[in-house]
Amino acid sequence: MRVGIVGGTGYGAVELMRFLTNHQAVDKIYLYSQSKQGTYISDVYPHLASIINVAMEELTVDHVVKHVDVLFFATPPAVSYQWIPALLETDVKIIDLSGDFRLDDPAVYEAWYKKTTASRDYLKQAVYGLADVYPDKIKQAQLIANPGCYPTATLLGLLPIIDKSFIDVDSIIVDGKTGVSGAGRSLSQGVHYAEMNENMRAYAVGSHKHTPEIERFLAEKTEKSIFINFTPHIVPMTRGILVTMYVNLTAAISRDTVQTLYESFYKERAFVRVKENHSLPETKHVYGSNYCDLHITVDQRTNRLIIVSVIDNLVKGASGQAIQNMNLLYGLNETEGLNLSPLYP
Amino acid sequence: MRVGIVGGTGYGAVELMRFLTNHQAVDKIYLYSQSKQGTYISDVYPHLASIINVAMEELTVDHVVKHVDVLFFATPPAVSYQWIPALLETDVKIIDLSGDFRLDDPAVYEAWYKKTTASRDYLKQAVYGLADVYPDKIKQAQLIANPGCYPTATLLGLLPIIDKSFIDVDSIIVDGKTGVSGAGRSLSQGVHYAEMNENMRAYAVGSHKHTPEIERFLAEKTEKSIFINFTPHIVPMTRGILVTMYVNLTAAISRDTVQTLYESFYKERAFVRVKENHSLPETKHVYGSNYCDLHITVDQRTNRLIIVSVIDNLVKGASGQAIQNMNLLYGLNETEGLNLSPLYP
Amino acid sequence: MRVGIVGGTGYGAVELMRFLTNHQAVDKIYLYSQSKQGTYISDVYPHLASIINVAMEELTVDHVVKHVDVLFFATPPAVSYQWIPALLETDVKIIDLSGDFRLDDPAVYEAWYKKTTASRDYLKQAVYGLADVYPDKIKQAQLIANPGCYPTATLLGLLPIIDKSFIDVDSIIVDGKTGVSGAGRSLSQGVHYAEMNENMRAYAVGSHKHTPEIERFLAEKTEKSIFINFTPHIVPMTRGILVTMYVNLTAAISRDTVQTLYESFYKERAFVRVKENHSLPETKHVYGSNYCDLHITVDQRTNRLIIVSVIDNLVKGASGQAIQNMNLLYGLNETEGLNLSPLYP
Amino acid sequence: MRVGIVGGTGYGAVELMRFLTNHQAVDKIYLYSQSKQGTYISDVYPHLASIINVAMEELTVDHVVKHVDVLFFATPPAVSYQWIPALLETDVKIIDLSGDFRLDDPAVYEAWYKKTTASRDYLKQAVYGLADVYPDKIKQAQLIANPGCYPTATLLGLLPIIDKSFIDVDSIIVDGKTGVSGAGRSLSQGVHYAEMNENMRAYAVGSHKHTPEIERFLAEKTEKSIFINFTPHIVPMTRGILVTMYVNLTAAISRDTVQTLYESFYKERAFVRVKENHSLPETKHVYGSNYCDLHITVDQRTNRLIIVSVIDNLVKGASGQAIQNMNLLYGLNETEGLNLSPLYP
Repeated sequence: MRVGIVGGTGYGAVELMRFLTNHQAVDKIYLYSQSKQGTYISDVYPHLASIINVAMEELTVDHVVKHVDVLFFATPPAVSYQWIPALLETDVKIIDLSGDFRLDDPAVYEAWYKKTTASRDYLKQAVYGLADVYPDKIKQAQLIANPGCYPTATLLGLLPIIDKSFIDVDSIIVDGKTGVSGAGRSLSQGVHYAEMNENMRAYAVGSHKHTPEIERFLAEKTEKSIFINFTPHIVPMTRGILVTMYVNLTAAISRDTVQTLYESFYKERAFVRVKENHSLPETKHVYGSNYCDLHITVDQRTNRLIIVSVIDNLVKGASGQAIQNMNLLYGLNETEGLNLSPLYP
Repeated sequence: MRVGIVGGTGYGAVELMRFLTNHQAVDKIYLYSQSKQGTYISDVYPHLASIINVAMEELTVDHVVKHVDVLFFATPPAVSYQWIPALLETDVKIIDLSGDFRLDDPAVYEAWYKKTTASRDYLKQAVYGLADVYPDKIKQAQLIANPGCYPTATLLGLLPIIDKSFIDVDSIIVDGKTGVSGAGRSLSQGVHYAEMNENMRAYAVGSHKHTPEIERFLAEKTEKSIFINFTPHIVPMTRGILVTMYVNLTAAISRDTVQTLYESFYKERAFVRVKENHSLPETKHVYGSNYCDLHITVDQRTNRLIIVSVIDNLVKGASGQAIQNMNLLYGLNETEGLNLSPLYP
Repeated sequence: MRVGIVGGTGYGAVELMRFLTNHQAVDKIYLYSQSKQGTYISDVYPHLASIINVAMEELTVDHVVKHVDVLFFATPPAVSYQWIPALLETDVKIIDLSGDFRLDDPAVYEAWYKKTTASRDYLKQAVYGLADVYPDKIKQAQLIANPGCYPTATLLGLLPIIDKSFIDVDSIIVDGKTGVSGAGRSLSQGVHYAEMNENMRAYAVGSHKHTPEIERFLAEKTEKSIFINFTPHIVPMTRGILVTMYVNLTAAISRDTVQTLYESFYKERAFVRVKENHSLPETKHVYGSNYCDLHITVDQRTNRLIIVSVIDNLVKGASGQAIQNMNLLYGLNETEGLNLSPLYP
Repeated sequence: MRVGIVGGTGYGAVELMRFLTNHQAVDKIYLYSQSKQGTYISDVYPHLASIINVAMEELTVDHVVKHVDVLFFATPPAVSYQWIPALLETDVKIIDLSGDFRLDDPAVYEAWYKKTTASRDYLKQAVYGLADVYPDKIKQAQLIANPGCYPTATLLGLLPIIDKSFIDVDSIIVDGKTGVSGAGRSLSQGVHYAEMNENMRAYAVGSHKHTPEIERFLAEKTEKSIFINFTPHIVPMTRGILVTMYVNLTAAISRDTVQTLYESFYKERAFVRVKENHSLPETKHVYGSNYCDLHITVDQRTNRLIIVSVIDNLVKGASGQAIQNMNLLYGLNETEGLNLSPLYP
């Protein structure tokens, strides 16, 4: 398999390289970058010296068609949508790690992203790549919209129960906490080491662009509009997302019942681990790996369900899931290149 | 003023010393410790060398009565309650940083703390030392139950609106995030550096002992039982608490109205800063200081209020507030010894 | 006393404000900034809200002469030297935290800083503000060149023995480790949180601009040129410098003798603590404070002296020492505004 | 291949499991622990859930002989030496990650470790497993003494030039900086998160037990006793060692000459990367990987060589190198199971 990556100098791209250089079915990697053409990737990322010895090239549809079987976009918002319509005319498979194709309504995209994306017709051609929930659809796709980091952790936590009659879908509150790598490689005062270390803050309260992505796929299953509160926070660590979800119960239900429901929902899935009651998940338990660890509490005092979900934002929340999607697309074992133990400690 | 501190080797005590050695009205500091009698504090805490040159002594009521005007308990649960009844017979003023006197029902204490505390009669003699809300009661007290760290951040965030008709008191969700110093000085695997660094987790989901403390003082103002969800999380930093509170609105209300309400509630208070909409609080903005920074969002989409509150858990959440209480008790300027700028960066 | 600060938005300036707002003799603070005129400091640094309510102004000699008694330059290299000649014509006292006046030879400055500074005549008018070594000279100065962070930690470690016959001055190796705040507030990839966290590196090996500053003041005491190796490293923490110094012994000498020599050298100095053999210094022991902690090892196997020195780079290594110099200049108690306990933990 | 690990709950063991579960030639893993017999490893390390499902067993020579081809000791000092003599009577291959067999003189071991090890006869049977320097000897061994973390980084930095006439072997100074995982999993106040975060310190100055190990293998090549200064420091990060080495030059020599010498010394070695002059190594460049990155500076001013070496202390400094040794022992490709990209960021 010949692979191309657009956006070669971002964290998404560099994490794709980590998995692709460890992947049995990948023969060749091309890197595309508009700003760094001609630069060797190991000059940008010295840790890759002697591992991947590739210079970045100009992205053109012609080059892709000639050399690449599957193309990853690891680009900022509003880039991939300019290329994908032309690529859909070819046989190239596309996995887009950006948000451009995750929503089906361009107006909603523009409202939250403050940018433009493709038209509704193109958006409809994308399959949402939540690999542990939609593997069958993904296998058929040409274009995969790889989920956002928060939506991955949140949807894996909520989809097993979102259509159950014992919950109140209007009560959902999602409190997210992320490590700093989620903010990407671009410099800003807020993630300057001296000011981010020993610091935490909420951001984008009520306005984070992952909100409509979560709402869309919850609503798809309930066939009813859903509005959630999603509040992200940034905490002083490089990798890891922990999402705490609160849902009102409308009926008495035991923790065992809910646990069984989750275990059954994920029983075929290699990368979702439903934890026992005594064992709360920690982001370090999934560090550098493609796992999502889930935990359920039924709070009898308040009649609420509390779900905790942890992932590595750069792996299951981005590049690892993208590789999993590539494996599904090509009929490979879903875990190929990904069955690495988390790094601990 | 002559001051005594029981529990001389914990973080609460050492932080008290930082403020007391910078306090104009304090002449003398005595340290009491059962496990470290005879040891100089600077042998336990080398940073105090040449600053405080005191050996720890055995705690006895006699010694206290003879030498001390105000006595701080910076002890684990279920210690102070064994001493305070006898001390209440004397003229000594007492500020208890432990949880022993924060609840008024010993049965509730035992249910959440899994330990014993004083009888209801003694509990009733304590004034709850939330200094920015109850300064007048505090001035009259002999025994002050200094609030917990999470309750301080949470109650300062909720008390201005808890009795308003536009909120649903049954909908309150409190998602707390703390730095590691909140876990104290005792060693445990969970706060071992190599495993806590680059890691976060929820803990005590549905069972944290600060829950009934928060509920008590919310209920006191509404005259109606209140049950909240409180979920604490630990994040890899030493100091700082950020609490995110979610409350359903029962009526349309503008952010400006709520903002004005908060500003008016705290307009005489030196240590509470209500932030503008564009300026989300960060724990580093209060680092090492006695400030609480508050921020309000009204989310029109979901009809919820989101309140963010930050404090330094060891200062406003413990020792700083205790000093503020001491100042109130002695009719001093509330800010004496405490008007230090936060440490930034 | 009326104080002015040039470079109002850097870490040096903000740390000066922390101490000046806690200083009894300071009535008024002016902030000068070329890039942020008209901006309130609390809009740049929200932690200062309600503490210092000052807008930044344009720097002119006229304004300074009219309003300011002592002026701090907390500016990047090659700024202060453009202003100071004119200011030396006035009665204003100047404390320059930049490196512009620390060397006495403009050619050496240019060789290491790759920038221009004042002429030799002006450089000679500056007194080097190593407050714990040259207090008497400092009291007489109009212009103080406040020492660099590494030179402060290093010179305090070496000056007590540099002129002793039992050491080989040609053997000195200085291995420095700094927290990230030493790199300042300007953004760069190297101190981007996601890449600096869980990372350390050496930098400017053999070429750091603090090298000639250290060499100058060692040589001044020995009256012989001295060349040292100085290798700085950056480690993932915000505040703190630890310097490890290696010096060959030319004669057998006991640790006790050396210890006594250091204790005697610093016996009148409030801010230098010479540690016992069993008690190695830690940067956290001086966190946020103006202390320098020193430790001596005599290694009999290799016949070398190993000196460890720790400071807070922003306090003793910059703004704290600058305040100490201001106190000396004005005949105040040297510790005024500075006698705060380190923040621990 | 059937593998056994003694010391199943330490960081060395858990890091071995990360590599062994990703190793093509390994069929079966046994874990031995005296304190945790019967416990499943995923109950100690939840990150291993669904990855390795093994309970810890009692260590007996019989069990090992029956089930295991190669046995790793990842134990504290003075454990492995009690078992290895009996195991040397069998066909089992042994890789000892502890220090027990790294020195050839039991008296030197006792002087530095303050513990007992095997007799000189047994010590002589061990081959020192510095895999990038002694691959041929290692291939023949039954017992491999896997090097310490600091000695690995230091010896890889010094062995290429230790026997050259242009250096002064009596001038060597080694300044080491380590992340906290090097201190292991046992709890202690010094590595309690709240006190280790935002902190650094030197430790074991002049007395660290890795000193004689470094000196032994330097001396072996020069055939002359060598005494070095080795000063370790601990810095607030989990993984990574950076060692800075200072060596006096006795003759004028260019950086290019030294660079060529290093490149030639390591030209066949997959895991040692000699960096260009402009590219200083960072510990994050080798994070989680088996690489050692080296950098050379020739300081003309002081006539000294400065060598910087970085490794991941748990990988190249322990378990990764142990796997590399296992590969060498079994005639496998040296990189099998280890050719993973460093984790970045």
